[in-house]
Amino acid sequence: MDKVLKDIKQALQLAGLRDGMTLSFHHHLRNGDFVLNQVLAAADQLGFRDLHVNTSSLFDIHAPLIELIRRGVVTHLECNYMSARIGREISHGLLEDPVIFRTHGGRPADIAQGRSPIDIAFIAAPTADKMGNISGKYGPSACGSLGYAMADAAYAKKVVAVTDHLVPYPLADVSISETDVDYVVEIDRIGNPEGIVSGTTKITRDPIGLLMAQYACRAIDASGLLKDGFSFQTGAGGASLATAAFLKDLMLEKKIHGSFGMGGITAYLVQMLEEGCFESLMDVQCFDLEAVRSIREDRRHCEVSALKYAGPRPDVKSSLVDNLDVVILGATEMDKDFNVNVHTNSQGEIMGGSGGHSDTAAGAKMAMIIAPLIRARLPLIVDQLACISTPGESIDCLVTQYGLAVNPRREDLLARFKEAKLPLLTMEELQQKAESFSGKPQPLDLSGRVVGKVRYRDGRIISELHEVKD
Amino acid sequence: MDKVLKDIKQALQLAGLRDGMTLSFHHHLRNGDFVLNQVLAAADQLGFRDLHVNTSSLFDIHAPLIELIRRGVVTHLECNYMSARIGREISHGLLEDPVIFRTHGGRPADIAQGRSPIDIAFIAAPTADKMGNISGKYGPSACGSLGYAMADAAYAKKVVAVTDHLVPYPLADVSISETDVDYVVEIDRIGNPEGIVSGTTKITRDPIGLLMAQYACRAIDASGLLKDGFSFQTGAGGASLATAAFLKDLMLEKKIHGSFGMGGITAYLVQMLEEGCFESLMDVQCFDLEAVRSIREDRRHCEVSALKYAGPRPDVKSSLVDNLDVVILGATEMDKDFNVNVHTNSQGEIMGGSGGHSDTAAGAKMAMIIAPLIRARLPLIVDQLACISTPGESIDCLVTQYGLAVNPRREDLLARFKEAKLPLLTMEELQQKAESFSGKPQPLDLSGRVVGKVRYRDGRIISELHEVKD
Repeated sequence: MDKVLKDIKQALQLAGLRDGMTLSFHHHLRNGDFVLNQVLAAADQLGFRDLHVNTSSLFDIHAPLIELIRRGVVTHLECNYMSARIGREISHGLLEDPVIFRTHGGRPADIAQGRSPIDIAFIAAPTADKMGNISGKYGPSACGSLGYAMADAAYAKKVVAVTDHLVPYPLADVSISETDVDYVVEIDRIGNPEGIVSGTTKITRDPIGLLMAQYACRAIDASGLLKDGFSFQTGAGGASLATAAFLKDLMLEKKIHGSFGMGGITAYLVQMLEEGCFESLMDVQCFDLEAVRSIREDRRHCEVSALKYAGPRPDVKSSLVDNLDVVILGATEMDKDFNVNVHTNSQGEIMGGSGGHSDTAAGAKMAMIIAPLIRARLPLIVDQLACISTPGESIDCLVTQYGLAVNPRREDLLARFKEAKLPLLTMEELQQKAESFSGKPQPLDLSGRVVGKVRYRDGRIISELHEVKD
Repeated sequence: MDKVLKDIKQALQLAGLRDGMTLSFHHHLRNGDFVLNQVLAAADQLGFRDLHVNTSSLFDIHAPLIELIRRGVVTHLECNYMSARIGREISHGLLEDPVIFRTHGGRPADIAQGRSPIDIAFIAAPTADKMGNISGKYGPSACGSLGYAMADAAYAKKVVAVTDHLVPYPLADVSISETDVDYVVEIDRIGNPEGIVSGTTKITRDPIGLLMAQYACRAIDASGLLKDGFSFQTGAGGASLATAAFLKDLMLEKKIHGSFGMGGITAYLVQMLEEGCFESLMDVQCFDLEAVRSIREDRRHCEVSALKYAGPRPDVKSSLVDNLDVVILGATEMDKDFNVNVHTNSQGEIMGGSGGHSDTAAGAKMAMIIAPLIRARLPLIVDQLACISTPGESIDCLVTQYGLAVNPRREDLLARFKEAKLPLLTMEELQQKAESFSGKPQPLDLSGRVVGKVRYRDGRIISELHEVKD
């Protein structure tokens, strides 16, 4: 008995694809993913139209989607993140139906609770067996964790594993079980390893980034949170990684034994695990090859589902973000109320999305934005955001190269940072400083029709994205 | 933030227990389990009545249940296995409502599909953290796999972890995730280690058992299934273990590399893994301390849910039993059509249940019963069974000390066994032989009211158990 089919078209036919159905994908292969394009091309060749695509993220490699949207093959998109190539087109009116943007915790919760049902989920599977047991840890396209795909596999009506590494049954160390998988398709390559994980992620050498990282590390030290049991998330940005590096030295020096590191995992967090800064890593996505090696070899480096990572209560009974001490996050724009935009650039064009931004900000005891005050001659802090990705009430402080601003709701933090003699400014002061260098930017025209909606982790639409006029 | 409550009573109250609700339990702590008794005692003390209990198995240690049933605290039972102490009482009319007997695969499927909803699941947790991440592998009451508890945790309305080993958050190597758990209760001891796992499981020294094991091993060798990729399940009975021991020698001699060993796992299967007979072990329950050590240390020794072990299609999209080559099973009685009774003794009193018997028999390419032809002066083969636990159509052969009987549906096996010069008899011949020693037993009186129903893995009631008159 096995579930192996001859190709993707056969899988679409046996899974019962019809016009109007929702297909789902995940983004662990990131800008190296071949699966989404191949599946949609097959659906197009079979003549299907009006397809809905729900994926955890879209990258530039998925640009063929643009043409499929133009031709009516795909008519609706839902995702947590969309990089600039497709984002720009959406912002300029490509798609009639507004894109639904979720968070990494909200998306699987909506799938699990039946609020965004999926007809056919496609799992890009770096390793699979003939019955559909799947792992992300092994094979030529190994990506490590498959955390974002788990809800799709568990709740979609039909589930198809697409693999380039079919191994003897039964695969032992599985991310997704045969109990959930209907079909297995073997293709030549599911992805381009260079796009899947970067070989290495690197700390910034930029002095501004290093300065911000030093401030961030001092702020963590001053926060009162850096003690045994400390938990921490950071992303893969250069200044964030630099913060992790400074933090590691500080934790080793102070002999602080943290509990867990989380998030997209990089070599820096792996090093912190191995040097005893953390007891475990909770990994919903690997960002580099060292993380992939570690999750394969080290039992303390745990693959977790997106629901366990960041699922909102009461849809889940708790998730890791509920016990997170500190998260370091980015921003493209902020306003004086600490609201953050990570969806658009300064022209209002889509080039990102929440991902886990608002989930971790909501959960963490200290959510810290690290961002240069001016980027490409434009100030970070503006009067009106093109989009609110993360509400300011869940952001505790902003770290820039000129100093820190603390959310007035956090008087406790402000007092601690003062005591630690950190350079403190108000958002107004930071905004003035930025504008003194770059001038006040023209307010964006937000009168265009709605091309995207930001669905917060609790299901509320907290912001709308508007068409950018040419 | 944490979910730790002060005691079981508080958990029952916060979980909203009301009269008539269904509580669920699992049996990994087997005859050492303290949790079921403590929970029901607490519910009794709080004055609740008419409770329904759904548990994977009941053991003699759960005898306090008898008094709770007499007093109307518990009015309905569902389980996959019930040992003799409570079984005898049920058979003599203790409970008005018939007990629903399921299989290890059918029970989680019914829970997952909403056919047997659970209000509050109690997870006996050898290790847990404050948020309800649970592992069976660590702690003073370690039992290894928690495979039978996974559906309860995933689908019950409320889930309570009861632990005697609370560890710092977050537990890394988890069996059940905080996303599913509402409350955590710490108690002094969740079980008696001597009853949880036997220190060692032992091969029979009985010459009849060894002879049957030799026949069984020769039959496996002759079946055509013993080749690279071979998969195998056996239980913990003395003759079954002896078969595994003979099989190990044979596989090593013939350099056969099997794929997986499965079932309740013992030291013998662990040895087979470590010596290269199998690539992996799929473990829904550990039977001895060596299995517990192995599942903790060896990544090839995998914890699997009962759904993955034995869930029926289409409730799951496949399970391990669908790709099982050979399973060795027991029987208390059989009839000439190869139907098997593992629920009652020769008096018709309940002392067992299907467990994974009918699941594995349905899935395996060769389901082999190993049983002595006469036990306690009573013949194995009778004209009418007190209960059909596993339909004869899924049993391929019977191994006794006098030789083998092959199901006439398996002409292919019969030919192979003949060629291998195995001693072959028909069921009729075996029955006659047994009766020549022990005489023909009196037919059982099956006119008593129905006290139990055997629900097959596909949901059909395939047999009823009758009250035994005193």
